[in-house]
Amino acid sequence: MSADQTPPNSATTPGAPTGAAAPAASQMWGGRFARGPAAIMEKINASIGFDKRLADQDIAGSKAHAAMLAKQGIISQADADAIIGGLDRVKAEIDAGSFTFKVELEDIHMNVEARLAELIGEPAKRLHTGRSRNDQVATDFKLWVRDAIDRSIAGLTALQAALIDLAEQHTGTVMPGFTHLQAAQPISFAHHLLAYVEMFGRDRSRFRDARCRLNECPLGSAALAGTPYPIDRFMTAEALGFNRPTANSLDAVSDRDFALEYLSAASICAMHLSRFAEEIVIWCSAQFRFIRLSDAFTTGSSIMPQKKNPDAAELVRAKAGRVIGSLNSLLIAMKGLPLAYSKDMQEDKEPVFEADDTLALCIAAMEGMVRDMQPNVPAMREAADRGFLNATDLADWLVRELDMPFREAHHVTGRAVKAAEDRRVGLTDLTLAELQAIEPRITESVYPALSIEASLNSRTSFGGPAPVRVQEAVKAARERFL
Amino acid sequence: MSADQTPPNSATTPGAPTGAAAPAASQMWGGRFARGPAAIMEKINASIGFDKRLADQDIAGSKAHAAMLAKQGIISQADADAIIGGLDRVKAEIDAGSFTFKVELEDIHMNVEARLAELIGEPAKRLHTGRSRNDQVATDFKLWVRDAIDRSIAGLTALQAALIDLAEQHTGTVMPGFTHLQAAQPISFAHHLLAYVEMFGRDRSRFRDARCRLNECPLGSAALAGTPYPIDRFMTAEALGFNRPTANSLDAVSDRDFALEYLSAASICAMHLSRFAEEIVIWCSAQFRFIRLSDAFTTGSSIMPQKKNPDAAELVRAKAGRVIGSLNSLLIAMKGLPLAYSKDMQEDKEPVFEADDTLALCIAAMEGMVRDMQPNVPAMREAADRGFLNATDLADWLVRELDMPFREAHHVTGRAVKAAEDRRVGLTDLTLAELQAIEPRITESVYPALSIEASLNSRTSFGGPAPVRVQEAVKAARERFL
Amino acid sequence: MSADQTPPNSATTPGAPTGAAAPAASQMWGGRFARGPAAIMEKINASIGFDKRLADQDIAGSKAHAAMLAKQGIISQADADAIIGGLDRVKAEIDAGSFTFKVELEDIHMNVEARLAELIGEPAKRLHTGRSRNDQVATDFKLWVRDAIDRSIAGLTALQAALIDLAEQHTGTVMPGFTHLQAAQPISFAHHLLAYVEMFGRDRSRFRDARCRLNECPLGSAALAGTPYPIDRFMTAEALGFNRPTANSLDAVSDRDFALEYLSAASICAMHLSRFAEEIVIWCSAQFRFIRLSDAFTTGSSIMPQKKNPDAAELVRAKAGRVIGSLNSLLIAMKGLPLAYSKDMQEDKEPVFEADDTLALCIAAMEGMVRDMQPNVPAMREAADRGFLNATDLADWLVRELDMPFREAHHVTGRAVKAAEDRRVGLTDLTLAELQAIEPRITESVYPALSIEASLNSRTSFGGPAPVRVQEAVKAARERFL
Amino acid sequence: MSADQTPPNSATTPGAPTGAAAPAASQMWGGRFARGPAAIMEKINASIGFDKRLADQDIAGSKAHAAMLAKQGIISQADADAIIGGLDRVKAEIDAGSFTFKVELEDIHMNVEARLAELIGEPAKRLHTGRSRNDQVATDFKLWVRDAIDRSIAGLTALQAALIDLAEQHTGTVMPGFTHLQAAQPISFAHHLLAYVEMFGRDRSRFRDARCRLNECPLGSAALAGTPYPIDRFMTAEALGFNRPTANSLDAVSDRDFALEYLSAASICAMHLSRFAEEIVIWCSAQFRFIRLSDAFTTGSSIMPQKKNPDAAELVRAKAGRVIGSLNSLLIAMKGLPLAYSKDMQEDKEPVFEADDTLALCIAAMEGMVRDMQPNVPAMREAADRGFLNATDLADWLVRELDMPFREAHHVTGRAVKAAEDRRVGLTDLTLAELQAIEPRITESVYPALSIEASLNSRTSFGGPAPVRVQEAVKAARERFL
Repeated sequence: MSADQTPPNSATTPGAPTGAAAPAASQMWGGRFARGPAAIMEKINASIGFDKRLADQDIAGSKAHAAMLAKQGIISQADADAIIGGLDRVKAEIDAGSFTFKVELEDIHMNVEARLAELIGEPAKRLHTGRSRNDQVATDFKLWVRDAIDRSIAGLTALQAALIDLAEQHTGTVMPGFTHLQAAQPISFAHHLLAYVEMFGRDRSRFRDARCRLNECPLGSAALAGTPYPIDRFMTAEALGFNRPTANSLDAVSDRDFALEYLSAASICAMHLSRFAEEIVIWCSAQFRFIRLSDAFTTGSSIMPQKKNPDAAELVRAKAGRVIGSLNSLLIAMKGLPLAYSKDMQEDKEPVFEADDTLALCIAAMEGMVRDMQPNVPAMREAADRGFLNATDLADWLVRELDMPFREAHHVTGRAVKAAEDRRVGLTDLTLAELQAIEPRITESVYPALSIEASLNSRTSFGGPAPVRVQEAVKAARERFL
Repeated sequence: MSADQTPPNSATTPGAPTGAAAPAASQMWGGRFARGPAAIMEKINASIGFDKRLADQDIAGSKAHAAMLAKQGIISQADADAIIGGLDRVKAEIDAGSFTFKVELEDIHMNVEARLAELIGEPAKRLHTGRSRNDQVATDFKLWVRDAIDRSIAGLTALQAALIDLAEQHTGTVMPGFTHLQAAQPISFAHHLLAYVEMFGRDRSRFRDARCRLNECPLGSAALAGTPYPIDRFMTAEALGFNRPTANSLDAVSDRDFALEYLSAASICAMHLSRFAEEIVIWCSAQFRFIRLSDAFTTGSSIMPQKKNPDAAELVRAKAGRVIGSLNSLLIAMKGLPLAYSKDMQEDKEPVFEADDTLALCIAAMEGMVRDMQPNVPAMREAADRGFLNATDLADWLVRELDMPFREAHHVTGRAVKAAEDRRVGLTDLTLAELQAIEPRITESVYPALSIEASLNSRTSFGGPAPVRVQEAVKAARERFL
Repeated sequence: MSADQTPPNSATTPGAPTGAAAPAASQMWGGRFARGPAAIMEKINASIGFDKRLADQDIAGSKAHAAMLAKQGIISQADADAIIGGLDRVKAEIDAGSFTFKVELEDIHMNVEARLAELIGEPAKRLHTGRSRNDQVATDFKLWVRDAIDRSIAGLTALQAALIDLAEQHTGTVMPGFTHLQAAQPISFAHHLLAYVEMFGRDRSRFRDARCRLNECPLGSAALAGTPYPIDRFMTAEALGFNRPTANSLDAVSDRDFALEYLSAASICAMHLSRFAEEIVIWCSAQFRFIRLSDAFTTGSSIMPQKKNPDAAELVRAKAGRVIGSLNSLLIAMKGLPLAYSKDMQEDKEPVFEADDTLALCIAAMEGMVRDMQPNVPAMREAADRGFLNATDLADWLVRELDMPFREAHHVTGRAVKAAEDRRVGLTDLTLAELQAIEPRITESVYPALSIEASLNSRTSFGGPAPVRVQEAVKAARERFL
Repeated sequence: MSADQTPPNSATTPGAPTGAAAPAASQMWGGRFARGPAAIMEKINASIGFDKRLADQDIAGSKAHAAMLAKQGIISQADADAIIGGLDRVKAEIDAGSFTFKVELEDIHMNVEARLAELIGEPAKRLHTGRSRNDQVATDFKLWVRDAIDRSIAGLTALQAALIDLAEQHTGTVMPGFTHLQAAQPISFAHHLLAYVEMFGRDRSRFRDARCRLNECPLGSAALAGTPYPIDRFMTAEALGFNRPTANSLDAVSDRDFALEYLSAASICAMHLSRFAEEIVIWCSAQFRFIRLSDAFTTGSSIMPQKKNPDAAELVRAKAGRVIGSLNSLLIAMKGLPLAYSKDMQEDKEPVFEADDTLALCIAAMEGMVRDMQPNVPAMREAADRGFLNATDLADWLVRELDMPFREAHHVTGRAVKAAEDRRVGLTDLTLAELQAIEPRITESVYPALSIEASLNSRTSFGGPAPVRVQEAVKAARERFL
């Protein structure tokens, strides 16, 4: 996309000087850009290589614009009909793969309009009345980002569904909850999975807010200063599913907040995915063995058949970098740009396209892994037995039963764990005498409180891992998110 | 902040080994960290140097927690009263500057609790029942970020007010609208300023959404797995102004989305500020002279008195880098972290504190510059006379009056401008004969349409720069934003 | 690239389970990834879409490896000859465009080896002895980055040549030197251009250092732990132009420093280009008019023929964001990765490829703009007359002739400039009486010192803008850099 | 730092307007910046809060400058002596903590000069002859970064020493080498540690190159255009330990490459540290137990005494984000800045200071952890027994003894491993008959080749893990790096 209302093949930008300079230039710049300045300029300037992805949006925008121009009497209804019919034919050609994108026509807008002119002749020349490429590309790109947001939300919803389905089966599957990768307290596998359901729920919510905020239509802001034609911007806004037209024409063509906000939400989402991916890599290690992925999501090795490399998880983890890099790129490109449109803003599309491709792939791969994942229930349970996960429960018993202040209960528990550790046993393996040597008021009733299952069952605070809570949470998640 | 429910001075983490290792170690590490491993660990581990900024939030959270514990019968009302009274005294000491923060107590939570114990004795040891530092710090930091958001919104509102006040005076002040830093079409100074009002309006809206999304209370999620105490998380959530408690205890202590979303919104806002700052720098140049800043926002030079360096604008422009860098920092820190709490998450605070300081300063400086700014009305008007800003108006006249297709009107206009350029005059300086030599159907009535004022006045499309529109826009902005 | 020594079509990773899962899965994931987990895994896992750019390097590496295996008696000379001849045929097919890259063969290594097997049969199966894809891809990618560095250096050298050629013509072309975009002191256009010659010289130097540091050969490190075959790593290193083999096999397959260092150097270089691009945009504005670019590097407008939008410069400015974003991406991907190879590292190539494409294009476009650039000598000279650029010269005269301390000379000069400003004249327009009213010891001899030319000529300190110095600097630059 | 040669308290920038504006302004901006525009400007503009860290460098630079001015006859020797003596007194005051930094004097340069004037009177006013704050700050900051580089190199050398010392004891300590966090082939703990020695060696080399490249002295470039005084820039360059003066005065004051290159090298180094930190976290988990850290580098828990949270490692891992964020900040600040000095460049210091503090702390903490680390030799050995780490050795035996092509040997090995896996035994537990059922030519002699020790010992290729190689590598590392 480029500036204003200028066809690149216009009479006043003749190709001659460019062509004339080429031979000398080609010697100066060596082999890489063989045809001199014209070639370099075309290569750096043309956007059709990537903005052809906006074809659907461009045609939808033009149809809405043409219909409005006719309604307002700016062009005739016949012309509008010709334009709209022609645009449908252009779209059909693109959908069929028979459309030839021409780099000399620079961008998607000129490619579509030039083909329209071939198909319908003079009315095509009336289409660009009361608009400019500056508002046109802003409109197209907003529509595209809106679709990307909808795709992201749909993908996340499917991923949440996979997580909730799996969680539903494992509300009683005990695993150690970790902090610092050190086992801390017992939780269930379901509870762990539901943590990600929350994260992806916030991601959806962020995308939804971004969608709502972007949903103002720039069309009719023209180059930067609106237009004297009696256009109806509310009509085109409505036709394209926007809530309203943008309020300031300069802002409308200068604004790329919607792309940045999309990239911000995508970055946070990619970070969430990278966390889960890291856990999958760790859980798949021979040392953890908490889950098993099938061949569908691992790569094997013909000489080490036990070696199921969790490649998909590793790639999801790494690709967070790409999404964050894309956000960074566009923030940098926009930093310090004077109003209104500058060509710098053409650098908005590739980061967004790349982030959308990456995020969609990562979400789908993660959903696939969740559907594919086989938790190793005994391995999780066994891990929960190591590491004094019930130590906090002893402290809590002391507080509850003996009315001991919590900080004191900590110290008593610490001594009990030390005694158990010295004997290389668990807390429940200490005799009552041993416990009473540490704190005389401890009674037999402490033992039932110290089983891993009792510990888990007792954690019934709202949001906690007790199976009864998690069963409710699964149900609630299904209602909130699916 | 650090792990779980551990006082750093507990019996089971004795200082002895650390101390014993120190002498040898100090030789190994040379002079920079003179006291050996203990010194390095203290230096890298302690957060009190920066998290003391959470003091108010920490005390508010503890008061709400204590009140809830009493209400639920987990501690006695007398203990709760003692705790709450003691916390008020701690706060008073901090406010008065008489509180001594101790690095050996590591973080704000332990500093406050230790002082509370000095003040009220045993009840202090009951405060930490049913919570952990992991949920405590998440709660504190959410409260802090919520306040930062409120500050950002207030600052942006004041900045919008300054912009709207200035715009109101300049709806008739003609200036060239630029694309590519090339004059394009006439707009008004007011219209230009209102573009920024839109941007800052979106910023406020982003902050508002972030505030809404963060407003779930982690307190009571404890270390990561909730608690068996019959706590009432809804009560503490409400007391602290949250909408509800968080739904999953693992997520609650692992989540830093709220900080990332704040930093994302701050980054986009800082980018907006950098754009305006760039314009101020350019406008202050001797070549543009569109505005003048007073000594209050420039630095002079004793030998070049004309030289009013727009230092504040340059700093605002540059500081966008700092805010974006902070966002990047935290995204990187969070990438690939397994659940639940890891110490990596302690690296969340400094980037947010720095971004908040930076953004608040930039917003205030920008508001100051807007209030201080003297537009040079003649210089702007003169700039609008150069550069054929009325060329589009000729094309539009041809379309409107002669029903010429827009693309053809472009070509005709191009020839007219070429003729004017060859004669080194403006379009309105061409005689009717000269114009008719290009297009015979042109009549005298074209001339009035080509004045800069007529051009500006004609651009009445919604969101356009016609004074009538901009007056409405000023009024609407006041209603929407102030 | 992926793990270890595993062909993806090996007997032990049967396609059956994947295929079986597909139908159900395809319903779960919807239309985007139509063929179920296998499709998603293939899409996320295969790198052939981008790593085919490593074809030349891959073949060169395999040829060196085969020759070494024969020399060491690990395979027969006849097998090596067959392999080398076959690889030459594969390369010829790729060069001719007749090679079919297959996504099911995953990466460039397997594509080349599979085709080799088709061409020469059994000996192809002996090629992978004593190596793995992990060291193979590290070798290939290092060779590629080394070529990219050489390309960058060549491009920068050509750009420096263009700058030096232009500077040579303009050592006497006076322009204002700016700080804070405020005219400060007189310099020449040549002096300004030579500042960029220095920057690009440092860029070359950074690339050269990076090339030197990367030039250790990973080949023979195998999967991560070397090999029991009696390979000669020094021989392959030398054959491929490396200085030596890498010293540690784990590091060799885990290291992507060379890519990061390339991206760091590219980011700093792109930043330099963005600065010059910003200046070009400003200089092309109607307000500055310091230079003019031809149609070759601007886009015109059929209705605003004076409007030569400096699109190429704007794109160069913006694309700095892309390069920095790529650096950021790879730093994030590598952060926190355990040794040795992880699939995350496959995310190294696209950022580097994108940065290389972007940087090469920006350098070439900038060289083109420098060759194309027409400085507007009168406009620069006129700008130098405004803004009291000779104020420092008055202060310096006071110090030199009257032995006044510099800080006092500042104050005196400040009063003189104030007097001139009040009269709206330049310093040299003040009468001697007026000057003496400020400082009685001032004499007629001050006037010659205050002409812009005298000011420029006087600045003969090393590295200064006096024409005599800049002529030397041009000559020196030619010797240092071309 | 700020512009040109201007004292902020000069006559021509009177405080009056600022003061006058303050009361109204204070109402506009609310409570945060209570004293109106002057307060905001001071807050955003003053750098003394952080650039006081440049005091030593500033004084050293001024002493060199004064000595040169006297040598060149620009000031008297007596004045120079007074200045140098006075500067020594200022430094003594700063070192003693008795110096009062004043924010109204804005930066370190003016603070030092103002105090010098108080101490020695008039000669102080002659110090600033032939220089400006622009070249002064560039010189100071280069000197500071040079010191930071030296500190980083020293810290890395100490860290390498710790790694080499530990490696020396563990060349025979078998552990599994991992790819994808899956055990792959046997290595030694020493070999693993030496991989990091290589990384930190490259880091040192990058810092060294950066130091060499920065080592050109900007002093005497003055505001941007040199000076007419007959200064000797070679003399000051030499006095300050630079290799030569910078070649272009504009570039000299505009250049921050040295800071960016330092931050790039620091970012790559921090990434290396984050990888090792991740491994430490994983190795400390109950599932791996490969190492044990003492209380000196972990935080315990009073109720879970087994829980040694590896906080220091987690913080090192996270802090990579801070360093990368700092690099990003400065790249963004510098992007698109016109020449020469702009105030934006004042934003260079805080990111560098923060990165230096962070990196120094992380290196020291890592060295401390290496010195503190207790490898669990049996746990590593046991892990090497699981996972068919000898599978590649069987394939290699088939190639070596039976002249089987490697790809075929892979398939045979795959079948053998499958057979072993089905029986839930290791490869060496298969009977010869079982092996011969897969490949009849296998003989008894295969068994010795399949022990983990034999596998390790056989990997004698250069850079490989065989103890004989690693012993050489330890020796070589000591020579290369210590």
